[in-house]
Amino acid sequence: MASSDTVEVRGHLLDSGVLSRCATDVRSLGGDYVIERLDVGKDSGDESYARIRVQAEDDAALASILMRLNAYGVNLTEPGEAATRVTETDGVFPADFYSTTNLDTQVRLDGHWVDVQQPEMDCGLVVVRGLEPASVRTVPVSDVRAGDEIVCGAAGVRVTRPAVADRDAETFEFMNSQVSSEKPQALLVRQIADEMRQTKAAGKRILWVGGPAVVHTGAAPAMVALVENGYVDVLFGGNAIATHDIESSMYGTSLGVDLLRGNGVEHGHEHHIRAINAVRRCGSIAAAVEQGVVTSGVMHALVTHGRQFVLVGSVRDDGPLPDVYTDVIAGQRAMRAQLPDVGFAIMVATMLHSVATGNILPASVPLVCVDINPATVTKLADRGSSQARGIVTDIGLFLEQLADELVPQRPRSHRSA
Amino acid sequence: MASSDTVEVRGHLLDSGVLSRCATDVRSLGGDYVIERLDVGKDSGDESYARIRVQAEDDAALASILMRLNAYGVNLTEPGEAATRVTETDGVFPADFYSTTNLDTQVRLDGHWVDVQQPEMDCGLVVVRGLEPASVRTVPVSDVRAGDEIVCGAAGVRVTRPAVADRDAETFEFMNSQVSSEKPQALLVRQIADEMRQTKAAGKRILWVGGPAVVHTGAAPAMVALVENGYVDVLFGGNAIATHDIESSMYGTSLGVDLLRGNGVEHGHEHHIRAINAVRRCGSIAAAVEQGVVTSGVMHALVTHGRQFVLVGSVRDDGPLPDVYTDVIAGQRAMRAQLPDVGFAIMVATMLHSVATGNILPASVPLVCVDINPATVTKLADRGSSQARGIVTDIGLFLEQLADELVPQRPRSHRSA
Amino acid sequence: MASSDTVEVRGHLLDSGVLSRCATDVRSLGGDYVIERLDVGKDSGDESYARIRVQAEDDAALASILMRLNAYGVNLTEPGEAATRVTETDGVFPADFYSTTNLDTQVRLDGHWVDVQQPEMDCGLVVVRGLEPASVRTVPVSDVRAGDEIVCGAAGVRVTRPAVADRDAETFEFMNSQVSSEKPQALLVRQIADEMRQTKAAGKRILWVGGPAVVHTGAAPAMVALVENGYVDVLFGGNAIATHDIESSMYGTSLGVDLLRGNGVEHGHEHHIRAINAVRRCGSIAAAVEQGVVTSGVMHALVTHGRQFVLVGSVRDDGPLPDVYTDVIAGQRAMRAQLPDVGFAIMVATMLHSVATGNILPASVPLVCVDINPATVTKLADRGSSQARGIVTDIGLFLEQLADELVPQRPRSHRSA
Amino acid sequence: MASSDTVEVRGHLLDSGVLSRCATDVRSLGGDYVIERLDVGKDSGDESYARIRVQAEDDAALASILMRLNAYGVNLTEPGEAATRVTETDGVFPADFYSTTNLDTQVRLDGHWVDVQQPEMDCGLVVVRGLEPASVRTVPVSDVRAGDEIVCGAAGVRVTRPAVADRDAETFEFMNSQVSSEKPQALLVRQIADEMRQTKAAGKRILWVGGPAVVHTGAAPAMVALVENGYVDVLFGGNAIATHDIESSMYGTSLGVDLLRGNGVEHGHEHHIRAINAVRRCGSIAAAVEQGVVTSGVMHALVTHGRQFVLVGSVRDDGPLPDVYTDVIAGQRAMRAQLPDVGFAIMVATMLHSVATGNILPASVPLVCVDINPATVTKLADRGSSQARGIVTDIGLFLEQLADELVPQRPRSHRSA
Repeated sequence: MASSDTVEVRGHLLDSGVLSRCATDVRSLGGDYVIERLDVGKDSGDESYARIRVQAEDDAALASILMRLNAYGVNLTEPGEAATRVTETDGVFPADFYSTTNLDTQVRLDGHWVDVQQPEMDCGLVVVRGLEPASVRTVPVSDVRAGDEIVCGAAGVRVTRPAVADRDAETFEFMNSQVSSEKPQALLVRQIADEMRQTKAAGKRILWVGGPAVVHTGAAPAMVALVENGYVDVLFGGNAIATHDIESSMYGTSLGVDLLRGNGVEHGHEHHIRAINAVRRCGSIAAAVEQGVVTSGVMHALVTHGRQFVLVGSVRDDGPLPDVYTDVIAGQRAMRAQLPDVGFAIMVATMLHSVATGNILPASVPLVCVDINPATVTKLADRGSSQARGIVTDIGLFLEQLADELVPQRPRSHRSA
Repeated sequence: MASSDTVEVRGHLLDSGVLSRCATDVRSLGGDYVIERLDVGKDSGDESYARIRVQAEDDAALASILMRLNAYGVNLTEPGEAATRVTETDGVFPADFYSTTNLDTQVRLDGHWVDVQQPEMDCGLVVVRGLEPASVRTVPVSDVRAGDEIVCGAAGVRVTRPAVADRDAETFEFMNSQVSSEKPQALLVRQIADEMRQTKAAGKRILWVGGPAVVHTGAAPAMVALVENGYVDVLFGGNAIATHDIESSMYGTSLGVDLLRGNGVEHGHEHHIRAINAVRRCGSIAAAVEQGVVTSGVMHALVTHGRQFVLVGSVRDDGPLPDVYTDVIAGQRAMRAQLPDVGFAIMVATMLHSVATGNILPASVPLVCVDINPATVTKLADRGSSQARGIVTDIGLFLEQLADELVPQRPRSHRSA
Repeated sequence: MASSDTVEVRGHLLDSGVLSRCATDVRSLGGDYVIERLDVGKDSGDESYARIRVQAEDDAALASILMRLNAYGVNLTEPGEAATRVTETDGVFPADFYSTTNLDTQVRLDGHWVDVQQPEMDCGLVVVRGLEPASVRTVPVSDVRAGDEIVCGAAGVRVTRPAVADRDAETFEFMNSQVSSEKPQALLVRQIADEMRQTKAAGKRILWVGGPAVVHTGAAPAMVALVENGYVDVLFGGNAIATHDIESSMYGTSLGVDLLRGNGVEHGHEHHIRAINAVRRCGSIAAAVEQGVVTSGVMHALVTHGRQFVLVGSVRDDGPLPDVYTDVIAGQRAMRAQLPDVGFAIMVATMLHSVATGNILPASVPLVCVDINPATVTKLADRGSSQARGIVTDIGLFLEQLADELVPQRPRSHRSA
Repeated sequence: MASSDTVEVRGHLLDSGVLSRCATDVRSLGGDYVIERLDVGKDSGDESYARIRVQAEDDAALASILMRLNAYGVNLTEPGEAATRVTETDGVFPADFYSTTNLDTQVRLDGHWVDVQQPEMDCGLVVVRGLEPASVRTVPVSDVRAGDEIVCGAAGVRVTRPAVADRDAETFEFMNSQVSSEKPQALLVRQIADEMRQTKAAGKRILWVGGPAVVHTGAAPAMVALVENGYVDVLFGGNAIATHDIESSMYGTSLGVDLLRGNGVEHGHEHHIRAINAVRRCGSIAAAVEQGVVTSGVMHALVTHGRQFVLVGSVRDDGPLPDVYTDVIAGQRAMRAQLPDVGFAIMVATMLHSVATGNILPASVPLVCVDINPATVTKLADRGSSQARGIVTDIGLFLEQLADELVPQRPRSHRSA
C-alpha cells in the first residue's frame, strides 16, 4: 500500500452507520484503513469524532477512495488546495472530475473555503473566476462547456454531514430499504443450494415452511424432487398447501390439464372441499396415501419418504384435512417439537406460517424467506427474526432452479409442466 | 354424449360474463352445450334470460356439471326433488354431496321449495325433518355428524343470482382481479419462447422494451445470448438500462465482483456518472464500442450484431448518454419508425417505457409484459393496451429460463454470475 | 331525443362485456339505446351479432357517442363517407377530430374502404391524397401540420374488434383491474356512513372485522367513538388487535407518548406479552375492565357498551389473551353465531380474518373491505365474496373521516393524537 | 436518579446500531446513561467493546431498562445470581418475569452459567431443578403451570449477540424496513402543516411535486384551497397532472359527475386528448385561462394566483400541453431555476417527477414524500435523497386533511365531492 492519507469526520457516527459504510467502501475499492482515533460523546446528545488513516496501492486508487469517503462527509484532515482542469469538449467532464453529493460543500481556492452554490448530486464543480473572490457552482454534465474550469480529485473539497437536529421532533424515520427485487437471483439460488448441502453434510435437518403458491405456481414437481433427494426433512404449513397439493393429485385430469395449460387454479370451485372430504373419510393423509386415494404430489412424497410435516390450521380454513391441528397452541407445540437439530430454515410463499415459525426459531438457525411480496420478508424481520435474509422472487422459478442445482439429473417427468 | 339436461338463468347476463363462465366450465368438465334460447332485455335496465342444453358422457359427469352451473345461479328448468343421503361418519360428507355457494338457495322437498338458512360457501346442506315443514341449513364438513341427512347432486336445488340493484348507487366496482403471481411460470416461459420462434419463422421482428433491472438482477448475460441468437431485433429503453449495462461493463472488476458476490448495486456511487462521461467523450455508444471503451454487455451485443435500439430520456436522467433522445416527442417518432414488421413485443421491468410503447403499438401486435410488480402490468392494460398479457415474476430468473429455452447450448460463460 | 343512428358489432360479445360497456357509455354521454337484434352463436365457438339503435339530444351529442362506440368496434350500419376538415394551425386538430384506437381501422373515402396505416391510440387520422388511391395514416397531435386533411366525426370509419383466436392457447387472461387507489375517497367515506345509518335505521347489526393496524395508525379513538355511538355491533378479530389495543391502554404513559409523537410502535418490545400476562391473570378482558386493569381503548369500549366480539387465534399468536379461541373451528362456530341480523359488514386492515369472515358470510350482506394493500381486497373477491367492494386507502385517515361523518360532535379528546 | 448499574456489550457495534438503539430505549423508559468506555477495533474485522452506566428513578424502572438492554446482548458487568419466583396460576407468569429473545442466553444459578435450551422469543424462563445441575428452558405463557420456577428481572441473565460471521459470505443484507403504513397519519398531517406554516413565516417558498392521482382521488378542491391560501409557491409535474386537471375542468358536466358519483375516471376515453387539443389551440395554459377555456381546477388556481409551475414531459405523454417541456434537459434547467428560496418540498403521488426533483434538490431542504405505494418512498431515499421522510397514505384523504389543518375556514364548495 504505497499511498495513504488521513481523513476525519464529526457527527452522530454511532447512529448513522457512516463508519461502517466507509469501511465497506474502502475495502471494495481495494484499499485498507486504520481507525486512529474515535472520541465518543459521553452524553446522548454529543457529537462523536473519528480520524481514519486510509491506504491504497497508488495515488489514483487513493484519489478514488477519498472522493468516495468525501460523499459521506469524511474529509481530509489536511485538505490542501482544490485541483482543477479545463474542459476540452462541450458536455464532457475531465476523467477525474469530482462528482458531487447534495450535501453542503466547500472548495478551497487560493487559501479560502468557498461555498458551493446550489448543491446537487451527480454533478461537477465549476470554478467561476470572473469576479473576486472566485465562486463555485454545480454543473450537470449536459451543461458543461469547453473551457470551463472543473474541480478534479478530492483535495481541497470539504463536505458537511447534516446534523440530526432535534431528536424529539424527529417523528419520521430516515429510510433505509434493503429488501429489493433487483438482485442477481440466479446467484442467490446457488448460495442457498450450497447452504443446504452443507446442512446435510453436517448431519442437520432442513426445515421448510410453505404456502399454497408452491402448488399454484406449478412448482410441486420441483418440490417433490427436493423431498425425494433428502433436502426436505420437515415441512410446516397450513391446510391450504396440503389441500391444493392433494386436490391437484386427485383431480389430475382436469386440474392437471389446467395447470399444464396455464389456465391457473380457479377459485370457488368445489374440488378442494371434495378433496378434503375424501381424505377425511380415509382418516389421515398417510392413510389416504396407503389406500391409493392420494398418489402423487408433495404430501405423497413426504409420506412415502418418511419425512415429517406439521399442519396448523387457521380461521379461514375449509374442512380442514384430518392432519391439521385446529388448536393453534397445540399446533405451536407440535412445531416446537420438530426444531431440535434443524440447521437451516427456508420459508416460501406464506406470511402466516413464516411469522409463526420465526416466533419459535432460535436466532442461531440460518433463515431464508422467499416471497414475491416484499412485505412478507419485511414483516418477518420486523417481528424479531433479525437473522432472516429475504429474497423477493418468483416461487415457481425459484424452486425450479433450486431443484436444478440440487438434483441436476432429475428426469423430465419431475420437471414442472 | 349420453346424458343431458336443460338449465336456465335470469339476470344481467350480458354484464356479468356468467354465460362465458358457464361455457368454460362445461367444456373443462368434459361436457358440451347448446344455447337454446336467449332473450335480451331491449332496454338498458331489463333482465335477460337464457336456456341452455347441457350434455355429458354419463350421469355422474352431468351431475358434476350441473352442480357447477348451479353455483352461478343457473338452475335446472325441471329441478325435481332434492336427493339426500345419510352420513355414515362424523365429519365426512357423502361423496356426491352438494357443495354450497353463499348465494340465496332453495331446496325442493316434498314438492315445496325450502329456503336454506344462513347461506355459506363450501358447506353441505343438511335437511332437518324434526318439525313440519322440514328445514334446510348449511353445515361445514367439520360439524356434520353421522346420521345427518345431506343433499346430494344438483336436482332439487335452486340458486338465485344477486340482482345488481341500483345502477346509480353502484359506486364501487365488483372486483375481478386477473393479474396474479400464482401461475405456473415455467410453462409461461416456454410459451413465450414458442411465440418468439414463430415470429422469427414468419420473418417478423421482435421488439423488446427493458428497464435497468435487467442489469441489476444479473440477467445481462442471458439477454446477450438472446441478442446474439437473433431474438432481439430492436430494444426500446431509457438512459438507465444503457448506463447501468455500460457501467457494469466498464467497472467490471469491482462492480462485476459485486454482482458475482450478490452484494448488489450500491446506490449513490458515482460510477454511473463516470461511465456516462466516458461515453459522451467517445460521442456515441457505437463509437465507445469501436474504441474499446465498452467491451461487453447488452448494448455491446446490440451494436456488434447490428441490432437497433431507441433510448428516450426522462426528467430523472443523469447525463444522459449521447444516444439518448432528450426530446420526448422526437423520441416517440424514433420509436414509431421501428414499429413496421414488429410481430411480437415483450416488455420487461419498466413502467415508463412500457406504457410509452403501449401508446404507439397497434393492438394487432401480441404483447407480453413481465414485471415483479403487478401494478406495471395492470397500468399497461388500464391505459388501453388491451392485448397486453401480464406475467408477474422475477426478471432475472425469467430471462435466465427464457435463454435456456431459446439458446439451450449457450456456454457457461454466457450464464448469469 | 331528436337524433339517432344504428350501429352493429360482431364477435364474442358475451365474453367480452362489450355490450355492457356500450350501454354504460351511451348513458354517461346523455344518450339512450335499444338493442334491436342479438344473435347468439349456438355453439361455443360461434360469433355473436348485435344491432343497436342509439339516440341523443342532438347531432353533436350523437357524434360523440358514435365515436366512443366506434372505439369498441361498434360501427355504423350505414357508415357513409368520412368527413374531413383541413387543419389551420401546426400541432392542433380540428375540434371534432376522430380520436383513434389501436385497433385495425378503415376509412371510407370516395366509396372505398382504405386501411389506416400503423394504428395507434389517441391520434388523429390524416388523409394523404397525393397518390391514387388516397391513403390514411395516424398522426399524433404534436406532428399535425397546418393544411393536413383530418377525419372528423365517426361517419365513414370502421373499427374491427380483435378476434379471440384460439381458445385453448389462451393461457394468459386479459387484464381488467378494478382495484385502484385512484378514487375520490372522501366521497366513498360518505357513502359508507350513509349505508351504516340505513343499516341501523332498518334495525340491522353492523359487523366489523379489524386488524391491529386500527391501533397502530392511531385510529383507536375514532373507533371508540363509533362503538360508543352504536355503529359497531360486533367485532371479529384476532389476538393482535385486542393485544395492541390493551397494551396501548395499559402502558399509556410511554406507548401513548410514542403514539402521540408519531414514533410508532416498536416491534420486539416485551410490552405486549406483559399486557397479555396481566389480562390472563384477570381471567378475561371483561374482568380486566371490571378490575380497572384496562381503562380505555376499543376493547374497553366494547365491554362497557355491551357490544359483542369474537377473537379467533392463529398460529403466530403470543399468549394469547384469555378470550381468544385457540381452536379455529370453535372460533368459526362462534363467528357464525353472530351473523344473524347482520345487515352490513366492514373489514379493515386484516387479510386473515377478512377472508375467514367472507367464507361464512351470505352473499346478500353488503360488504366493504378497506385496506392500504390492494392484494387484501383482491384476495377477498377471488375467494368467492363477489359482493365485496374494495377501498384501497389509509386506515387511520379513513376511520378518522368516518367518525367525523357519523359522530360530528365528538369532543377533541376523542380525536386521534 | 437514585438507582444505577453498569452494563457492557461486545461485537460489531459500529455497524449494528446497537448503541443508538440502547440510547433511545433508555431515554424512552425514563432513564439516562453515560458511555464510560468505548474501545473500537483498529482493523476492519475487530470487535468493539462498550461499557455504559445506566441510571433510573428507582429499582423497578432500572430493572425494566436492564431487561430491555439485555435483549440487545447488553449485559450487566456484574450479573449476580438470577432471581426466580414460583408461578401461582396455570398460564400466568409472575408480573416481573424475564421476557426472552431468540438469542443464545445463559442464566446464572448457584454460581454457574446454565445455557437456556431452545431459545425462543417472548417466552419466560423456567428453572428445572429435579436433576443436578439445574437446567433452564423457555416456556410460552400458555404452557406455564402453577408451581413452575420462573426467572424474574435481568439479574443473572446473559445474552450473546450473534457474531456477523464471514463478511464475504454475507450476500444478503439484514433487513431494517422503516417505511410503513402503520403510523398515526392524522398526527403526521398536523406536523407537515406546522412545517409549512413555519416555512412561510421564514419567508421561504414551498415546492410541490404532484402526479395525476391528485385529480383522480378527488383532491383537486383541497389542492386549490392550498394554492389560494399561499401554501403552493411552485408546482413541478408532468403532462398528466395538468391534463387531467384541465380535462376535469372542461368536461365538468360528465366527468365532474363521474367524480362526484365516485365512478372514477375511465381510461381510454378521448376526453384528455380533446382537452389537450383545445389548450394547444389557445397556445398556453395561461392563455386558456384568460380566454375562459379553463375556468377551475389546480392549474387555473396557479395561473390566477400568480404561482409558478414547471411541467416536464415524458415519453409516454399524449399531446402534450403547450407548456410542457418536451426536452427533458431543458426541463431540468427550468426546475433548477425554481429552487432558490425553496424552504420545504412535498411530493405527492408521482415517482418520476419526485425522483427527478430529488436529483436536483440540496440535502438541506426538508423533503416529505407522500404516496400510497411504499416503493415510491423507498426509491427516493435509495437514490440519494437521504433527507426524504416518507408517508405511506391515501393522497385524497391526506390532502383533504392537510387543507382542513391549513385552511380550516374554507367553504363547503372548496371541499371534495
